[in-house]
Amino acid sequence: MINLTKQDVKDCFTMRDAIEADKEALAHYSKGQAIVPLRTNIDIATRHGQALFMPGYVEGEKDALGIKIVSVYPDNVQKGLPSVPATMIVMNPETGMVSGMIDGTYLTQLRTGAVQGAATELLSRPDAKIGALIGTGGQAECQLEAMLTVRDLEEVRIFDLDFSRASAFAEEMALKFGVRMVPVETSEACVTDADIITSVTTSKRPTFEARHIKRGAHINGVGAYTKDMCEIPKEIIKDADVVIFDTTDGVMQEAGDFIQPLEEGFVNENQYNGELGQLINGEIKGRQLEDEITIFKTVGSAVLDVVTASKILEAYQKKSKN
Amino acid sequence: MINLTKQDVKDCFTMRDAIEADKEALAHYSKGQAIVPLRTNIDIATRHGQALFMPGYVEGEKDALGIKIVSVYPDNVQKGLPSVPATMIVMNPETGMVSGMIDGTYLTQLRTGAVQGAATELLSRPDAKIGALIGTGGQAECQLEAMLTVRDLEEVRIFDLDFSRASAFAEEMALKFGVRMVPVETSEACVTDADIITSVTTSKRPTFEARHIKRGAHINGVGAYTKDMCEIPKEIIKDADVVIFDTTDGVMQEAGDFIQPLEEGFVNENQYNGELGQLINGEIKGRQLEDEITIFKTVGSAVLDVVTASKILEAYQKKSKN
Repeated sequence: MINLTKQDVKDCFTMRDAIEADKEALAHYSKGQAIVPLRTNIDIATRHGQALFMPGYVEGEKDALGIKIVSVYPDNVQKGLPSVPATMIVMNPETGMVSGMIDGTYLTQLRTGAVQGAATELLSRPDAKIGALIGTGGQAECQLEAMLTVRDLEEVRIFDLDFSRASAFAEEMALKFGVRMVPVETSEACVTDADIITSVTTSKRPTFEARHIKRGAHINGVGAYTKDMCEIPKEIIKDADVVIFDTTDGVMQEAGDFIQPLEEGFVNENQYNGELGQLINGEIKGRQLEDEITIFKTVGSAVLDVVTASKILEAYQKKSKN
Repeated sequence: MINLTKQDVKDCFTMRDAIEADKEALAHYSKGQAIVPLRTNIDIATRHGQALFMPGYVEGEKDALGIKIVSVYPDNVQKGLPSVPATMIVMNPETGMVSGMIDGTYLTQLRTGAVQGAATELLSRPDAKIGALIGTGGQAECQLEAMLTVRDLEEVRIFDLDFSRASAFAEEMALKFGVRMVPVETSEACVTDADIITSVTTSKRPTFEARHIKRGAHINGVGAYTKDMCEIPKEIIKDADVVIFDTTDGVMQEAGDFIQPLEEGFVNENQYNGELGQLINGEIKGRQLEDEITIFKTVGSAVLDVVTASKILEAYQKKSKN
């Protein structure tokens, strides 16, 4: 049984690999070539925990099957354990047999970074030079890596409500990626003049103001994943020329920042252009002009997990043979 | 990551252990101390396959959490692979983390044998001497082992539609268990005078006749698990003094032999006494007299999987420490 840790995955699978996997996954999803059953939740009240089971299947030349198991156990922190442990079970769709396991926490970070990278590659201006990252939590590093993978950025501004945390993160990332990282004290300083803005927080209020966004910018909303969360200001959603989702069903069920303006009548449905998979499949258009504002929102999907996991296993097996 | 094969399980966990695990599981289930979400099915049409995901949680002093993944891939046979491969993923309910994997095919055989053993122990006459086993498929050995674990049988008659198969099975089992095994050519010869009858087939017609069953016998219906399957003749269900299910919900949804007589009005609901867990919990009565006929029907449940699997892992860890 193959059981891959974060390091095992890093040793055989790059962010570029993950971006291509996510593109493939969403292209199939938007063609209706995926089966994503409703997530099964078990409440484990006596442990103050919850276990979530997320199976999925994606068709294609190389089809992919598996299930991600994610547990939400806030009390784990006191035991020095992750509060949201996750494991991906990879299955062989040819035989139905379990073929391996992958650290689900890193898989989630990787595929979530990668889906933003895919969107940023397809929607942001090719000459983008300045990046802005809002939030320095567990997902931040993969988000940064994805931005740097698809665009040749000269500088990334880092903002966090805790400035010392932003500084420490910026220092570490500058060393890791060899790109100038600038910790900033305000979200205004972070997003002003930025070409690519990625917000990855669980904020309930917008993490920046629409008036600070320059024409031509591309914005990624990555963090908010419940109805009461909101990272992206509704004014910029209304101003944007292109608004693309990873999956419309997912965003319309879970992303407060995109549900609320629609429910309020602040924007109408035409403001939302469609899915990244449709863009990849050539069914809808993305950025048309240099000064357009584009927005991408992701809440994640089991299709990203199963396809990325299947390709990781393949890469690992290929590497092991060499 | 612990990953236990059939042999690993056999080396640390006996049929008696499994019987106690199943009793505990059903006792909790019948008290409402279990969460068994609906099974999630994914049809993989292009592969002629199906993947089934069966999570469960059982409360108790030692609670148990996990998910069994079972795939139904008829084409696997041509590849020399099992047509119904299965894997049990065991989780630690204290932390929500995946703690191990167990061969799901053997786990299913073991816990299904064990639940029959639990019922036979609680319902059959203590002085039972003659056993009858109908069906010699993949589940048969564990069914036989369970019968021999709970009662001191002098002889077991073995019947299969294919007599040569019954003979080969009888010979192998006699060697293995040191008990007289008699292959027989008819189901009449199998069940006549038998104290304990276990039917483990996927038959669509009763596998024996009610008139051949002696007073005082105990009957286990193990095989039939769809609405159109039927192993137990309706006449004996009507004649029986006690009819017990592993789970009423499961049997009433899946077991044709017990659904049909009720739907036809051949028996009424009072004929069905309740669940094995209720018997264990002392809420209902089992056999009261020596010449009563008792029947147990099982279709299986995720609670049997998660509790048995959790106890197997515990036994393995204990053994590894010594």
